[in-house]
Amino acid sequence: MSSSSSASLALTRENVIAAHALIKPYIHHTPVLTNTTLSTLASTPQTAEALNGTQWEGQTPAHPKIKLFFKCENFQRIGAFKVRGAFHAVKRLIERTEGGLEEVRRKGVVTHSSGNHAQALALAARTFSIPAHIVMPSISTPSKIAGTKAQNAIVHFSGSTSQEREAVVADVIKQTGATLIPPYDYVDVILGQGTMALETTEQVEELIRENGDLGVHDGGKGLDAMITPCGGGGMLAGNAVALKETGIKVFSAEPSFEGADDARRGVEAGSRITTVKTLTIGDGLRTPIGELNWNIISDPSYVAGLYAVTEQNIKDAMRLVLERMKCFVEPSAVAGLATILYNEDFRRRVEKEAGAEGWNIGVVFSGGNTTIEAISKIFAPVEEKQAKREEGVIGRDGTKVIYNHGHPTRCS
Amino acid sequence: MSSSSSASLALTRENVIAAHALIKPYIHHTPVLTNTTLSTLASTPQTAEALNGTQWEGQTPAHPKIKLFFKCENFQRIGAFKVRGAFHAVKRLIERTEGGLEEVRRKGVVTHSSGNHAQALALAARTFSIPAHIVMPSISTPSKIAGTKAQNAIVHFSGSTSQEREAVVADVIKQTGATLIPPYDYVDVILGQGTMALETTEQVEELIRENGDLGVHDGGKGLDAMITPCGGGGMLAGNAVALKETGIKVFSAEPSFEGADDARRGVEAGSRITTVKTLTIGDGLRTPIGELNWNIISDPSYVAGLYAVTEQNIKDAMRLVLERMKCFVEPSAVAGLATILYNEDFRRRVEKEAGAEGWNIGVVFSGGNTTIEAISKIFAPVEEKQAKREEGVIGRDGTKVIYNHGHPTRCS
Repeated sequence: MSSSSSASLALTRENVIAAHALIKPYIHHTPVLTNTTLSTLASTPQTAEALNGTQWEGQTPAHPKIKLFFKCENFQRIGAFKVRGAFHAVKRLIERTEGGLEEVRRKGVVTHSSGNHAQALALAARTFSIPAHIVMPSISTPSKIAGTKAQNAIVHFSGSTSQEREAVVADVIKQTGATLIPPYDYVDVILGQGTMALETTEQVEELIRENGDLGVHDGGKGLDAMITPCGGGGMLAGNAVALKETGIKVFSAEPSFEGADDARRGVEAGSRITTVKTLTIGDGLRTPIGELNWNIISDPSYVAGLYAVTEQNIKDAMRLVLERMKCFVEPSAVAGLATILYNEDFRRRVEKEAGAEGWNIGVVFSGGNTTIEAISKIFAPVEEKQAKREEGVIGRDGTKVIYNHGHPTRCS
Repeated sequence: MSSSSSASLALTRENVIAAHALIKPYIHHTPVLTNTTLSTLASTPQTAEALNGTQWEGQTPAHPKIKLFFKCENFQRIGAFKVRGAFHAVKRLIERTEGGLEEVRRKGVVTHSSGNHAQALALAARTFSIPAHIVMPSISTPSKIAGTKAQNAIVHFSGSTSQEREAVVADVIKQTGATLIPPYDYVDVILGQGTMALETTEQVEELIRENGDLGVHDGGKGLDAMITPCGGGGMLAGNAVALKETGIKVFSAEPSFEGADDARRGVEAGSRITTVKTLTIGDGLRTPIGELNWNIISDPSYVAGLYAVTEQNIKDAMRLVLERMKCFVEPSAVAGLATILYNEDFRRRVEKEAGAEGWNIGVVFSGGNTTIEAISKIFAPVEEKQAKREEGVIGRDGTKVIYNHGHPTRCS
């Protein structure tokens, strides 16, 4: 298959630190931002009214004390955290391959993804003049295909099922000897994603040192907790590994729509859920959790708790980030903030565990790769969506849109 | 009217520096961001095709060399640069008033605005426990009224014409003795707005020093030019005063739609245009230029050139800033970037004056106070707009929207 040794690194904080040293020259040191309005909102109880119709109806809203620190990976290269794992995987592949860079250049790398990982891997490969083979479903949007080609990647088309994609990947490997770099369930990728936790803790400590009243605590104490969205789980597992035994708690946030909270449900049930079929607006979070990641995430010594939020919670959080913070993020990116603002189980927990002192919480904005049109669709008024649905423009699921290029109205 | 002395400061760079010292504790030191993609785009000739249908059709596209430095006043307090002028005006009023803060507190301040200046003045006044009277048209959107009231301001309603608003202002002054702080044509406000130029030049020098290859020049040279949007002209005049005799050229950017480029047209014609009626999407730039500002802006020793851009240019630039830079800005904020990217007169000028060395250009993002809904409307597909127009939801002018709360379709 490839001449690289398959001896993989251990998932340890030390190896995340080593990963950071390797990838630092290739990634942006993204800013950590604070926002008074959002921290105040997080520290204000929800109204009793807001809990109506939820599982917390009738309960007294929790009153946690929270200071938010946003790690803005939407400002990362290619617009998402994925470059961390991709650069680390490519650097380690070169290290590990007999014959080094020349040999990797001869054989290339391959992945199956139509999303941020494809672009990230293409960029990392291009940086070292390594051919990148990207297997994409032939029904991918033209802009994504063009975007991947613009990174000099070699695009291979496949059918839409995972079997069809894997068959094309196997074919590429057979033809070229390329090494597969999977999007999330892969040690080097997990270690790479964890590097954001190292930066965030340092940046928060520095911010609090420079500006004493910024954190919830007196003195120089930094982060108490960090929350990240969870799709395939690479970022969450990476952060959990990076923060193991630091005393900083790691939490997971997922959409609940159509069962997208497979990690949370799996942990509750005691076994990994391997199939998920959801069209949540958090489109980066539709994948089921990977096996390696499951081993980390289901271990409470790594991940302190898993929470889920509704589509409306995600929309509300996204509006706050765009309109108040003036930060352009994709829906998946705000699952963590939505949990902090709207999930009463999480808020109650902070109230109890943090007490009067409160918590400084790091919140990962994982990416910003969306479009004005996609946002317009998500926030289109309900009556407009209803009308389009009647016209066959929006499917019954509320998200699958079939464009109607003709006159957009008809008599009913 | 009021016991404050009307002796106003001179419009000089020294007085901008003094203003900066006064307001620094109350404003955010907003970041200056760079973006490789946008600088590359600015340094790439437009296609011949892109010039079809413009006044430059058939010309060889200009090929300037440009490095962009974005001063992000969308991250400023209240989401716009206006707090600079408002805080400076209030601080100077306190200084100048016999009886000082106590007397100003007794009488208050007043302005007529439904936009960013109203919120900025309300915040500045609240900071010193001074009552702020804001005169707003009674047809203002409820969110703006609520937003202004949330700043503890006393809202007075008036009719929509400027005569009706001024009558209410006069009435408030008569009742309370409040001092009028106009939104742009006012020395203290102009000097306050100019403070952003001081920060920008310092920040750009620092960025280039820290990272030698960031600017277009070798060595430590900073900004060559700065471009700002121009509505009433307070920000443009302030920056021009701040940068006078520094060797940094100041340029103006306006929308051309329905004559919104009144400053440019006035300078061309040799006399100030006092009435403008435009519904440009750059809604912060609909006002005609103020008299004090005109005196600065029409003087080529202050402002080196005035340019205009189309609505489509503004939309294209806005999309780049949102989707590529991941920065949430209002349409008015991108007039400068749109000029740099799409106005061939400006681009040709940079090519000629900057030559092979190129220019480092500071671009002011003036504010980010817009909503997802407003952006959705601006970018709605043409056929959708057309359909809504037929239904009476969008007026013939393409911007005035009358909400239709009933079923949104009808048979034609």
